[in-house]
Order: sequence, then structure tokens, then C-alpha cells
Amino acid sequence: MGLNKIGILTSGGDSPGMNAAIRAVVRTGISYGMKVYGIHRGYQGMIEGDISLMKTTDVSNIIQRGGTILKTARSKEFMTEEGMAKAYASLQLHGIEGLVLIGGDGTFRGAVNFFERYTIPAVGLPGTIDKDLSGTDFTIGFDTAVNTAVEAIDKIRDTAEAHDRLFIVEVMGRDAGYIALNSGVACGAEDILIPETVTDIDDVLNRIDRDERRKKTVHILVVAEGDDFGGSADVAKSVIARFPKLDVRTCVLGHIQRGGSPSYADRVLASRLGYAAVTALRDGNTQVMAGQINGDIVYTPFNKVIKGTTPISPDLLDMIRVLAS
Amino acid sequence: MGLNKIGILTSGGDSPGMNAAIRAVVRTGISYGMKVYGIHRGYQGMIEGDISLMKTTDVSNIIQRGGTILKTARSKEFMTEEGMAKAYASLQLHGIEGLVLIGGDGTFRGAVNFFERYTIPAVGLPGTIDKDLSGTDFTIGFDTAVNTAVEAIDKIRDTAEAHDRLFIVEVMGRDAGYIALNSGVACGAEDILIPETVTDIDDVLNRIDRDERRKKTVHILVVAEGDDFGGSADVAKSVIARFPKLDVRTCVLGHIQRGGSPSYADRVLASRLGYAAVTALRDGNTQVMAGQINGDIVYTPFNKVIKGTTPISPDLLDMIRVLAS
Amino acid sequence: MGLNKIGILTSGGDSPGMNAAIRAVVRTGISYGMKVYGIHRGYQGMIEGDISLMKTTDVSNIIQRGGTILKTARSKEFMTEEGMAKAYASLQLHGIEGLVLIGGDGTFRGAVNFFERYTIPAVGLPGTIDKDLSGTDFTIGFDTAVNTAVEAIDKIRDTAEAHDRLFIVEVMGRDAGYIALNSGVACGAEDILIPETVTDIDDVLNRIDRDERRKKTVHILVVAEGDDFGGSADVAKSVIARFPKLDVRTCVLGHIQRGGSPSYADRVLASRLGYAAVTALRDGNTQVMAGQINGDIVYTPFNKVIKGTTPISPDLLDMIRVLAS
Amino acid sequence: MGLNKIGILTSGGDSPGMNAAIRAVVRTGISYGMKVYGIHRGYQGMIEGDISLMKTTDVSNIIQRGGTILKTARSKEFMTEEGMAKAYASLQLHGIEGLVLIGGDGTFRGAVNFFERYTIPAVGLPGTIDKDLSGTDFTIGFDTAVNTAVEAIDKIRDTAEAHDRLFIVEVMGRDAGYIALNSGVACGAEDILIPETVTDIDDVLNRIDRDERRKKTVHILVVAEGDDFGGSADVAKSVIARFPKLDVRTCVLGHIQRGGSPSYADRVLASRLGYAAVTALRDGNTQVMAGQINGDIVYTPFNKVIKGTTPISPDLLDMIRVLAS
Repeated sequence: MGLNKIGILTSGGDSPGMNAAIRAVVRTGISYGMKVYGIHRGYQGMIEGDISLMKTTDVSNIIQRGGTILKTARSKEFMTEEGMAKAYASLQLHGIEGLVLIGGDGTFRGAVNFFERYTIPAVGLPGTIDKDLSGTDFTIGFDTAVNTAVEAIDKIRDTAEAHDRLFIVEVMGRDAGYIALNSGVACGAEDILIPETVTDIDDVLNRIDRDERRKKTVHILVVAEGDDFGGSADVAKSVIARFPKLDVRTCVLGHIQRGGSPSYADRVLASRLGYAAVTALRDGNTQVMAGQINGDIVYTPFNKVIKGTTPISPDLLDMIRVLAS
Repeated sequence: MGLNKIGILTSGGDSPGMNAAIRAVVRTGISYGMKVYGIHRGYQGMIEGDISLMKTTDVSNIIQRGGTILKTARSKEFMTEEGMAKAYASLQLHGIEGLVLIGGDGTFRGAVNFFERYTIPAVGLPGTIDKDLSGTDFTIGFDTAVNTAVEAIDKIRDTAEAHDRLFIVEVMGRDAGYIALNSGVACGAEDILIPETVTDIDDVLNRIDRDERRKKTVHILVVAEGDDFGGSADVAKSVIARFPKLDVRTCVLGHIQRGGSPSYADRVLASRLGYAAVTALRDGNTQVMAGQINGDIVYTPFNKVIKGTTPISPDLLDMIRVLAS
Repeated sequence: MGLNKIGILTSGGDSPGMNAAIRAVVRTGISYGMKVYGIHRGYQGMIEGDISLMKTTDVSNIIQRGGTILKTARSKEFMTEEGMAKAYASLQLHGIEGLVLIGGDGTFRGAVNFFERYTIPAVGLPGTIDKDLSGTDFTIGFDTAVNTAVEAIDKIRDTAEAHDRLFIVEVMGRDAGYIALNSGVACGAEDILIPETVTDIDDVLNRIDRDERRKKTVHILVVAEGDDFGGSADVAKSVIARFPKLDVRTCVLGHIQRGGSPSYADRVLASRLGYAAVTALRDGNTQVMAGQINGDIVYTPFNKVIKGTTPISPDLLDMIRVLAS
Repeated sequence: MGLNKIGILTSGGDSPGMNAAIRAVVRTGISYGMKVYGIHRGYQGMIEGDISLMKTTDVSNIIQRGGTILKTARSKEFMTEEGMAKAYASLQLHGIEGLVLIGGDGTFRGAVNFFERYTIPAVGLPGTIDKDLSGTDFTIGFDTAVNTAVEAIDKIRDTAEAHDRLFIVEVMGRDAGYIALNSGVACGAEDILIPETVTDIDDVLNRIDRDERRKKTVHILVVAEGDDFGGSADVAKSVIARFPKLDVRTCVLGHIQRGGSPSYADRVLASRLGYAAVTALRDGNTQVMAGQINGDIVYTPFNKVIKGTTPISPDLLDMIRVLAS
């Protein structure tokens, strides 16, 4: 009984810690007597049969590396009946009886359609820097991404302080403001604009005005790319319109937030979840995402994993204002 | 009503994030209309009256800095009646009516004796890299310290891989193995020796032997300084005695683990707890330590804050063995 | 005889290591029995009399900090007769008899006009990340800026490898390609576009085409902001026009390149040049910039310090092509 | 004509940038139409025939990695006639007609004996963190090692400042004090003890005494492991004997200085020298080490490459005293 052959893939945007998760899955699978196959380039590679058997040594010395050795891709073909049929045929060709899927909500949504058509046990891992999934307190890559943003904003503050400048820094987060919120608090940002709250640009401008009057000459605004008012360019436009004499600069941190060596927290989380995923697969607890809530491993059915953000406590917003004063 | 003047001090070993906590306390206090006094060099400075009023700008641009701008010290004098009397006199001289204490269990134990004699409201913050306090999931500085250890061990692995060497790396943790456990898992250590579990050195040596036979030529042992078997020197002695031909090196990471710019997690934790501490002081919720459990702020009476570690789950130990295979 | 009171200022764009230079100037001056005055915000602060006496302890613990504690600014007023007169009056008010100027070519050009009108001994230090000054092999801040760019591009490569993407990364360098050239070589960039060489966009596109045919799917172009063809947006437009199916992303590293803790090389260079500048001032060797050429301290008259770049050796360009193959 | 097959090896202690050099050698060789063989574990692997053909993709994505993918080892067997005979036989077996040797002085000394017996063209690259070779201004790995030491000492200063402690930090450098000298200057060390100068421990202690009297309470001594007076333990003993009340701590940075991602300077140097080495080999300019002096590539015959250090200028020592004041 039990699964003899399992496959693993990474899908969607890459995030730091995916390699640590791959390592955990491969080694746990092998320790359970399974053969573990690496499926390259996500669902697209599954369709194309880009699949290879993985040995223990294939995952040596990768726990500390950014990116994903299995590569990742978005696949439109996998959304078609034909694509899914091809993907399933690839799995059958290799005798793959179970899957570990690492990615974000798109990864699991894609999976749900597939599993409605083809019966194959699967367990998911939350691999995304955005921390925008229910069923887990942290996603693999979030901790590293925030630290990367913080290191960048610290550098920007050096030059902002030297020049008495206002900087508008845009961080990643299309639908969730967690990176902005946490990097903003951690860098002592004077203001933080996130999708979870309605941005009142006049309030933002009034706070700049008040600071200018008090001779607080350095001002850093952290803006989530998905803020409801707009990105850093839109904010800059408003600021310049109101304060034409201010020395305003814009910085879009961009893709550096996805890469880099993962933090300890992301490596440990990835290791725990990878181990838990294969154990769940072995034990028949499938079609679920393995997450961590309050320190415990928790399994949430794929169709209940929702992309979303929790409301930001008003207390936290009060604190931000007070601490930036 | 309410407190008009409060004092803040850091005590015991320094930890990254203490400055972020000081900033939060000073700014929150000022926003509540209080005067906030910095007490330098912990209880010793309190005794000596090394106290100064702090302005908002005194804590500008310190959120990202290691160490503590208030300095810290251990004070034997504070354990005497005479010392405590002098300390109280200093507080009275400045009209300080409340205290925020940042430190480890020694900081709070010292406080309990003091408060038995002198009535002064106080709230504590857990500032120690060791994460060895009840009443909070994380202590300020732990996250940074583990990341520092991880970066160092990653570097050691580079050279271990180049030379096929066995490295014994000693990390901090006199009574708790959390730094060792987390940095060990994060670096893919082949073995982790911690005070929470009984170290069977023969088991450790047998695992080295097994790896050598399988031609797994790189081996990293992470040892907590407080492991029951001994520190890295003791472990090295045993390894060399059994494997005289092995290329064995020892590395004691030491004080680099205390310093450095704090991670986002430590800065956010310090900010939240500093804000919470002053709020609690204002609201009369005192003689407690402010901690964070499952994401929520929790207050634990000083006399219930226990230095200690929770048992390590056997599951986690299984995982470590499997992933290092 | 000799100078009793000297002033120090930083001017133009800030660069990492300016604080190390300030520290060296202040401490060397004091060791020579001088009083050293900090002039805040460059020439603008000189005009406004924003000047204060500096003590040894004012420069404690700043050698490792980015930015400049003296702040920097660009001053249009200093280009006017009236501005220069006010500036000179400020110096006379404090009895300042000599100046140390830290900045780029604009800093020294501004100085030359001033010195034609007012006699005051001065020595300059090359503080700019661009390394675009004659009279020195390295400028203070260049080494750090390149390392910052390299760390960012390494992170971008992680995600480029994960997705098989083409990235166009724009680094600083309005007139000089040194940051682009060195970060590009160091990151194994597939192509490097710099102002020193004529960019033939068709060549660039043909190399992408050739790589695509060889299935070399990751491609990183490093572009100096001042490249003759244009910045990253212009290059992206051309790439997308020719290869509409390619997954192309753009990243402008921006101001993170100015900040951060200086590298050892920048700190040592700043320390040596700061010490040399004050020594030259004391010895009457003035109206020169102190630079380092082939490891030796060299003094170049202000009017011979030219903004410019040396031609790039064709050998180096050959090497880049070969190594990226 | 010309060489068709060349081998490359790394030998002695590993240093950051060795992988960048390997990449440059492999790709340059291939671009010249050569086959390039990787010889694993230095001369020991040459003896054992641990040799494999390298492709362009084998060196993809390694430029940024510490350690050496070819591994390194010290080989006593290679010092024997029999060992050298076996090594030569291995080369002949693969038809290897030329060698690139990356390492320190031991690497080249070993080579000289070998080449006296067997005719095989070879070019060396200086790969050592110690910068203790004539024929080059910098060795591959030195820049990174100093930056690593500096980051560690910066962290130690945080905790030294927090506690008013004296720290004795031991850095690598058995025969040369360059790492100590440069990291010491860069970290503002109060004293620097190096093998190049006679350490007068009474002077050192008197300087501590003077600082204590001036209430300069933080004191960092950087000691090269090969200092004539002894290592950090010896210095600590003397300090404690004279100042029994001082809070003294010792830190041996150890092997972290060998690992880590190389700095841009080491990557560029390694790339240039690797390219130059293969070009020299092709052109018949052999039995030389390729170095860089004043920015130019310089070739020094193996038997003229001397391990040694240049005298430290008294000016520099004066500067250190002045700046630490």
C-alpha cells in the first residue's frame, strides 16, 4: 500500500524558500521509500513531460538558495481540457501517483480543475512572497521578501537623511499590503499606503505638510503596488502637485524582493511544511494545503484556500502614526 | 490623572531590536503627553542617577541599529538594599512615576525584589536573543540572532564543501537550544545538540560514521553553548578521538550573534511591544511583561515570567534526521 | 604657524564612506591641535551659517554608516556673487581658515569660482559613487555602490533563472559606465550597455536572438542610466518590439545604490584620504584634491580634476562576451 | 597548433572568487576551441584521476558562490616522486596538455617541483584570502574576506558599545596582517596587532589605560592570528592580568572569513585573471602566475612568486592611532 512515486513542482511567481521546500519533499519522500520526480516549469512542464527522478544529492546545498531549481512558469495550456489530458498522461507515463504543489492561490485553483477530472492525490504548500493566502499564518518567502525590502529602504533612508528628501518607495503586493505594512513599520516610514485601507490622499498630503512645518525634513512613504489610490508614480504626481518645491524621489523595489537567500524563518517553515506535505500524502490526507497557524501544522482543503487579506487592526494604524511622529 | 513621567532602561545582555523598542516607548509616551526619561546602563545607572530626558528626535534613525543607545549593564549593587534605596531615590529626584524595563528574566527578577520594597508601576519587554522566557512566542532579538548564525554557518558550509570537512559550530544559548535548533534546521546541519534533549555522544559519532561510509563527506554539527554534553570543544575532542583521520574544525560564533541591524520581525515586534507597554502603563495594567502569543499582545505578571524552554517535539527531531540525510 | 580652525563639508550626491571621511578629518584635525567645524548641507549651509564645532565623540561610531552626518545639498545661491560673499562671511565669523570639501566634480568646480574671489586654503576629497573623476583610481563610495548593485542583480538572477526571463537592469552612472561595467561583469551579465561605447542596439538584439536559439533562456542586460542609446525603458521597448513573445522585465535599481554601510575599501580609502587632506592643509599643499593612484596618495589641483571616464579597453569587452557565453 | 586540452584545479585553502575564476577559465578555454577538464580536489585528485570534462553550463550560475565547485585539498602524496608520477599519468590519460592552477604559494611551490620533472605548460592564479603573494596587488578572496571580517566586527561593536566592553577580535592571517590591518582601520579599532610589526604588549596595555582614564570605555583590539606576540587568547591574558576589573571578551572569527558570496572586486579580479591565464597558456607564456598590479595584468614566473608581506608604512600606523583617538 501507500504511494510509491510522487512528483513535485513549483508554480506561479518564485519565492525564496522554494528550494528548501523541494529539498524537504525529496528527502522526506525518499526516507519513506518513495521515488520522487521533479516536474520542471510547473504545469507547463507537466504537460510537456519535463520530468526527472530526483536523488538525495540533487537537493544538497540548495536550502540556502533563492529561486527554484525546478523552475516555475505560468501555463495557459493547463487551463484547457487538452492540456490537462496531456499533463495527466505525463504523470501516468512515469507512474506518478501523488503530487506536491508549491505555489500561490493560482497554483491551487489550477489544481482543483485538474483534480475534478483526474484522480491524483496532492498536497499543496504556500509558496508566495505576498502572504495573501488563508490557511496559514506565513507563506514561504514572505519573511525574506520583507527583510529584503527593509534593507533596501534602510539604504534609501541614508540618502534621504543626507539630502532632506521625500522618498516614495513602492514594494510588491498586488492584492495585499503585508509587505508594505511590515517593511514600513520596520523602517519607520512616515506613511504606509496599502490596499486593505482606503487611501485618502489629502490626509497623506496633510501629514507631509504638518511634518514640513515642524521641520521634519525626511519623509518616506511606503506604497504597496496594489494600493487603491495607485502606485508610486501616482502618489508622486499628487505630492509634487501640492509641494512643488519639495525634493521628491521615487523608487520601485521590484524583483529584488523575490530573490536572495531565504531567511531562517522561511527555511524552517519550508522544511516543516515540505516534511508535513509528504507525510500527509503518505497518510492519505490529500487535496489540502499544508500551512502553519499559531506554530502548528494545519491542513486546509484546496477549495477553501482563499486569496485574501485580513483586515488591518486600527490599533496598528494608530501605532504607525505615533511611532513615525 | 495618569502618569506624567516615565523612565525606560535596558538591562542584561543586549539584543538587536532594543533600540526599536526604546524608540517606540519614547514616542508613544510623548504622544500620551508623558515625559520619558532614559535611564542609562540599566539598574546601575538608576542607582547612579545616570538619567536624562528624551526627545522625539533622540530616537530618530535608531530603529535599524543594533545594540542599545541607553547601554546596558549588570548591577550587583541593585541586589542590595542600599542599591535599591539609591535607585528609588534617583527615580524620585526626577519625579519618575513609572518604568519600562527591557531585558531578560534577570531584568524582571531584579525588578520583583525592587517592587516589593518600592511602589512604582512598571511594564517589561522581553529583550534577549535566547527566546527563553514564558509569556511570549518570540523575544526581541531572537529572529535577528538566528539569521546572523545562519549567515555565518552558510559561509562555513562553503568552505566545508570545498574541503570535505567536518565542522562543529557553537552558537549561543546557555539554557535554551532555540538558536541552535533553528539555525541548524535552516542550514541543513547534519546534527544539532541542544540542552533540551539528552545528548548521546555515541549516537552522534555513529551518525558521523554512517555518513562517512556513505561518502557524505561534509558534516556540520551545530551545538548550543549550553548543551548537556558540553560545548564545541568537548564535542570536538570526542569526534577526533573516534575519527582521528577526519579533518575536523571548530567555530564558536560568539558575540556576533548579539549585534547587527535587526530583522524586520524584531523591529515590528519591538515596536508593537513598546507601544503596548506604554499603553499598559497608562492604563494601570502594570507589574507585567508585554509579550506576543499567536500574534496577540499578552500581559504576564512579572512573577509568572519563567525562564525556561518548552520540550522539543519528537516530530521535529525526526524531521531533522530525515532532512539531513 | 599653520591653521587653527578648519571647516569640513559634504556636497553633491551623497556616497557611502562620506562619514568615514568626516571622522578622519575631524580626528586628524584635532590631533594637529586644530578646531574642526562641521558645515552642514554643503555650500548652502555655509551661506546660511549652519556651522558647529565638532568634537572627537561627534564622529564616534559613524565610520560604518551610510549617508553623511553633515548632510549635503546642491546650492544655486553659491553660484552667485552674493551667495559666495555670504558664505565667506560665515567662515570669517567662525574664524575658519581652511576647508576640506568632500564631493564630486561639481563640488570642486563650485570651489574654484569661490577661491578666485576669496583666499582660503582648501583640500578636496573625491566622494561620489560614479568614479568619474580624474586624479584618483577610486572615489569614496564606488566600491560599496557596485557591491550593492551586485547583490541586487544576484537576487534578480534568482528569479530570472526560475522563470527563464530576460531582465533589463538599470544602474546608476549618468556619465560613466563603471558601475554598470563592474556589476555586469561580476554578475555574469549577458550584455552591458555603457556610455563609453556606442551601443548598437541591433548587435544587442542579435545576441539575444543567438542565445534564444541556443536555448540559453536567461538573459540579463545591465544598462548604465546614461547609456547613449537610452535607459532601461528604451532598451525594453526595442527588445519587446523584436521579441514579442519573450518574458521581459525591467528593474531600475535607483537610490539604494547610494546608501548602506560602506565596504572596507571605501572606509579605508576615506580614512586615508581624510587624513591626507588635513595633513596637506596643515602643510600648505592646498587647492588640490587628494586622490589615490596605484596605492599612493596623489594631489591634483582643483582645476585639473576633470569629470570624465577613461576609454574601456577592447580586451575587457572581448572578455565580457566570452565569459557570458 | 596550440593546446587542445587543458585542466584546471583549485588547491590549498579555499577563497571566495575561486568559482568565478573557474568559470572564466572554462569559458575562455572553450571560446579558444579547447576542451577544459576539471581536476577535483587539487593535486590529490590529479593523482587519483578525479577528472572530468567541463561544459559551459557546468559553470553557469556559480560566479556568485563561495567555495570551489572543484573542491580543494592538500596533498602530501604529491610531494613524493611516486605521487607526481601518478599525477602526470592521469594528465596523459586524458591528453591534458596545459594546466591552470588556482591557489596560494603552496600551490605554486608544489607545481615547481612537478614541472622540474614533467614538462607541462601551466599558468597560476593567486587564490587566497591572505593577500600574501608577490606578483599581484590583490589575491582572489581577500576583498571578500576583509568585508566579512568588517561586518562581524561591526556587530561586535554594537554589543561592545552597549556594555562598555573591551573586545579582542582575532582575524585570519598566519603570516600576513593585511586582513587585520584593513578590517581594523575599517572598523575604527582602537589597536591592531599584526605580524609585520613587533607587538610591544606594554604599549598596547598603556593605550588601554590611557583610554580608560579618558572614559573611552569601548575598546576593540584586532589581532592577526599570526601576530608575533600571540593570538587573541594570549593578548586577553595580558589584558586581564593588568586590568582585572575590565569586562574583556574574546572572539575568534575563524572560518566564516573563507566563505560567502564574493564581492564584486573579487569576481572581477577572478574573471580577468582567469581570462588572462588561458590566454597566456594559449600564447605560450607559461610557468607564470597571472596577477594584477596597478590595474594591469602582470605575469610572474612561478619561482619568483614569493610568499611575503611588504613593510607597513609608518604613516599608516600613525593614522590608525590618530583616527582611533
